[in-house]
Amino acid sequence: MSSSAPPRLSELLDRTATRRDFIARASALSLAIPAVGAALTSCSPNAGGGADSTQTSQTPAGQAGDSLVHHNSDSRLDSALLKGRRPESSSLTDEAARGAERSVFNRYDPALPPAPANGRLQLHWHACEAPIRISDDTVVAAWTFEGNIPGPIVHCRVGDTVEFTLTNDSDIPHSMDFHAAQIDPKVAFRSVVKSQSVSFTFKPKWAGAFMYHCGTAPVLMHIGSGMYGAIVVSPREPLPAAKEFVIVESEFYLSNAARGARPFDYQKMLSTVPDFVTFNGRPNQYIKEPIRVKIGDRVRFWVVSVGPQHPCNFHVVGEQFDTVYLGAPPGTPIRGVQTWAVPPGGGMCFELLCDVAGEFPFVNHAFGHGQKGAIGILSVES
Amino acid sequence: MSSSAPPRLSELLDRTATRRDFIARASALSLAIPAVGAALTSCSPNAGGGADSTQTSQTPAGQAGDSLVHHNSDSRLDSALLKGRRPESSSLTDEAARGAERSVFNRYDPALPPAPANGRLQLHWHACEAPIRISDDTVVAAWTFEGNIPGPIVHCRVGDTVEFTLTNDSDIPHSMDFHAAQIDPKVAFRSVVKSQSVSFTFKPKWAGAFMYHCGTAPVLMHIGSGMYGAIVVSPREPLPAAKEFVIVESEFYLSNAARGARPFDYQKMLSTVPDFVTFNGRPNQYIKEPIRVKIGDRVRFWVVSVGPQHPCNFHVVGEQFDTVYLGAPPGTPIRGVQTWAVPPGGGMCFELLCDVAGEFPFVNHAFGHGQKGAIGILSVES
Amino acid sequence: MSSSAPPRLSELLDRTATRRDFIARASALSLAIPAVGAALTSCSPNAGGGADSTQTSQTPAGQAGDSLVHHNSDSRLDSALLKGRRPESSSLTDEAARGAERSVFNRYDPALPPAPANGRLQLHWHACEAPIRISDDTVVAAWTFEGNIPGPIVHCRVGDTVEFTLTNDSDIPHSMDFHAAQIDPKVAFRSVVKSQSVSFTFKPKWAGAFMYHCGTAPVLMHIGSGMYGAIVVSPREPLPAAKEFVIVESEFYLSNAARGARPFDYQKMLSTVPDFVTFNGRPNQYIKEPIRVKIGDRVRFWVVSVGPQHPCNFHVVGEQFDTVYLGAPPGTPIRGVQTWAVPPGGGMCFELLCDVAGEFPFVNHAFGHGQKGAIGILSVES
Repeated sequence: MSSSAPPRLSELLDRTATRRDFIARASALSLAIPAVGAALTSCSPNAGGGADSTQTSQTPAGQAGDSLVHHNSDSRLDSALLKGRRPESSSLTDEAARGAERSVFNRYDPALPPAPANGRLQLHWHACEAPIRISDDTVVAAWTFEGNIPGPIVHCRVGDTVEFTLTNDSDIPHSMDFHAAQIDPKVAFRSVVKSQSVSFTFKPKWAGAFMYHCGTAPVLMHIGSGMYGAIVVSPREPLPAAKEFVIVESEFYLSNAARGARPFDYQKMLSTVPDFVTFNGRPNQYIKEPIRVKIGDRVRFWVVSVGPQHPCNFHVVGEQFDTVYLGAPPGTPIRGVQTWAVPPGGGMCFELLCDVAGEFPFVNHAFGHGQKGAIGILSVES
Repeated sequence: MSSSAPPRLSELLDRTATRRDFIARASALSLAIPAVGAALTSCSPNAGGGADSTQTSQTPAGQAGDSLVHHNSDSRLDSALLKGRRPESSSLTDEAARGAERSVFNRYDPALPPAPANGRLQLHWHACEAPIRISDDTVVAAWTFEGNIPGPIVHCRVGDTVEFTLTNDSDIPHSMDFHAAQIDPKVAFRSVVKSQSVSFTFKPKWAGAFMYHCGTAPVLMHIGSGMYGAIVVSPREPLPAAKEFVIVESEFYLSNAARGARPFDYQKMLSTVPDFVTFNGRPNQYIKEPIRVKIGDRVRFWVVSVGPQHPCNFHVVGEQFDTVYLGAPPGTPIRGVQTWAVPPGGGMCFELLCDVAGEFPFVNHAFGHGQKGAIGILSVES
Repeated sequence: MSSSAPPRLSELLDRTATRRDFIARASALSLAIPAVGAALTSCSPNAGGGADSTQTSQTPAGQAGDSLVHHNSDSRLDSALLKGRRPESSSLTDEAARGAERSVFNRYDPALPPAPANGRLQLHWHACEAPIRISDDTVVAAWTFEGNIPGPIVHCRVGDTVEFTLTNDSDIPHSMDFHAAQIDPKVAFRSVVKSQSVSFTFKPKWAGAFMYHCGTAPVLMHIGSGMYGAIVVSPREPLPAAKEFVIVESEFYLSNAARGARPFDYQKMLSTVPDFVTFNGRPNQYIKEPIRVKIGDRVRFWVVSVGPQHPCNFHVVGEQFDTVYLGAPPGTPIRGVQTWAVPPGGGMCFELLCDVAGEFPFVNHAFGHGQKGAIGILSVES
């Protein structure tokens, strides 16, 4: 274990202690002994992202929390309990609203970044709260990875090594669950409290578009408040040359604005009727500024459906998918598809041959969702 | 361009004009200069349908509306703005309710019509409003293609030529989006105002059951009010001989009756809890009058799921699907399936071998939807 | 026909009688002439289950009820009409609440039982009402097969013979619909009233995880109140050796407790927002007591999605499915899948290779549902 490792949660825990005692002690200790290497980077929408050179080794949490009631699957730390709040709460915190009026709209770049040349990704991300402007008239009080919704796009190849560290800048415990990793989630995906870090390493076994998200309880609240993104794993043998884009669809369930930002609302999430459904975190952003390709291009959409409640019924108006890969690409292609449902928590790879010029809207064809922002334009230019 | 072509929308438009100006001018012009060939056929439930000999060439709209805010993906004309109404409105218009009390129930024939022998379909349809009796006690105030819900079944083969013209008989702008066409939607699927027409030609590339629908904004309102149907594209190499039927599933979200007809209700559509879920536009119609085949028949259901919110979880009680084609038939068959979800905006091909006589209900096995009318009976007779 | 066969419904029915007359006469007769062989076994949570030696032959119902309005697909007997109640009712009956306070929590064993060695299953089950404790603080007033939710797991192989008899112990009519059977549902899946039995025999043609359920009208009420389960049909040629488990996901829509038990609520079912979503009938039961396997095991989950409204978006945290079979296993495998949606009324087969030790939560990744109980833990032990 490297010296930058955070204290094991097991070291904080009398195995016979009650959950509440555990949390009180964990919180106190995390303030007294901030992990080396944590909180070095400030979290703002434009600060973090991408790879950095800070590498921390994997830090098993041991048997932490075994005696606790499991409130959900992914975590031993429950944000609601830790914060002394009911889980039926909102995402509104001081940090999530700070400077909301001054936050500016930034289009989320859907282009797939290149995979690392050396087969190794080193990522040190921060979990933090931040106001995000999603349209001219709406700012949301978000919980984020790296200050954005979605978090950064990760791209690697099957068999590459991904070394990941999450440092928590927030008073709310957080964690990271990569769907591309095969790893003990009790250890790797455990929650950390403020200033603590968790690190793990994985080698993706299968190609595909995979979701990542915070798995801290209540998971619905953490996903629903903005903590998700996409990791795209390309096969070792390259797929046909294409213009490649990443679309992360997610639903926004919001309360009325407070302090300039609309909080995410847990009760509304449970009601299943969202206020917005977005591609890459902003309603209709690719109508205002389309995704542009050239005639003759093959276009590959890596689509991740976050939910947290509904599938993304992906469709391109005026086009048909040449290929949809049901399993890991290039496996099990199906051909000539108008619309395919990506389940919440799932991902899929869609290919188009752009042999006609024009403006082709891509939508969630459950049109109640399309109507709420899950529409963009693919502009095929000659 | 033939002489029957409507004026290009680009001709109506000062590129720097505001959207509202544009719409005012477009409306005025469409009244002053009705397109030749438009409004020749009156729209009634039994009037139109099928092919006719009026052939109009494809009419590109040019760059019309580029300077406008895109309110949705498929169209530059927004019915709510054009009518000076809030999009949160109902389908109730004078035409949609006229004669509602006298409207009679007509079973929708689910039989797949033959594909054209000469490889060419010429269709001239009208968009119009009409009351539709969907059961003994319910008439809906519908927006339609050719006066019916769904619109006519279109059947052709891969590579056939479909020449399509839509004339709008309604004060509300409308348009046509065929999921079987690969074509610039900005041109071909553009909205037209009253008395105007739009024409385009396409050659389906892939076999399958494809949705068609009005794509005018707000799309949810136009789909939700009845403007949809199925185009079935058979492969060039025939599939195994079968009795072939078309099932279009759609949800009905209705307000209370006014002037004898229940209007479709946009706000209710957004709530996602429908009043009826229907196969071919009438709840339970194939219980009253089943689909009849003979023992030994192979039965092929081409199922289109309109939504606009939910999938059709297609199932036949007492049977199992011999084959479901995931991609374009005959590609990627799967075997021995009890239930498969057709996503909203999607279509699929299901085959049964009827080697047992009996009455086999076909349902949406999300039984809250089955309970609301998405049930019919397949009667296998010896 | 064996002497133990119940009276044919056709014998009770004047073909020109009204539905209400029919039901009155059927009820009277069923009390006067209880079927031989019926009600031999008392129905309690621990009483029935598995195979028994009572064998009754298939009993065709003839043409019973042809003149009646079909209220749903699966049945000629409508529980609401028979009981003189509105279908918008609750599951609360005297029997469903009797002894609710004393009912104890029993974990539902998810292990797949062995298929019969002799290729023959003889099942005599009872439909009955019973209180079921699903958690420390919740008892539900259930309608059941064999006194449990779900009913017993059935396991056989393709081509085996399943001889099934259902005896109804309840004042409410019930029936049985096996999705693994290809059989005339009008006969085999017909409803029976109290003390009557229905018997039928089938030979599953396809491998897979199939739902069974009560198909009596209103079907939504009978499924929604607990009458469902799984029949797993293994292929003749064995799949790779694995630890095999059955997961039946279902939604619970409940009213407030009365007489110690929370009734299932038909109106709430229609609202589509459940109180609980469960794996095998109890929220979070496999968090408290995980499913345990050894490192190196292949794990096969046979997942049936009951709904009655939503799909099960099946996912295992920290793992990826090596294989999901889209059609009948071993057909059409797809590889490297994070999450796949099993539609309501459907079933699917998922395989994992457990080459990492740890605690792997399995969830419905529509996390509003995960949050309501559709979470368990797969413990991979070294």
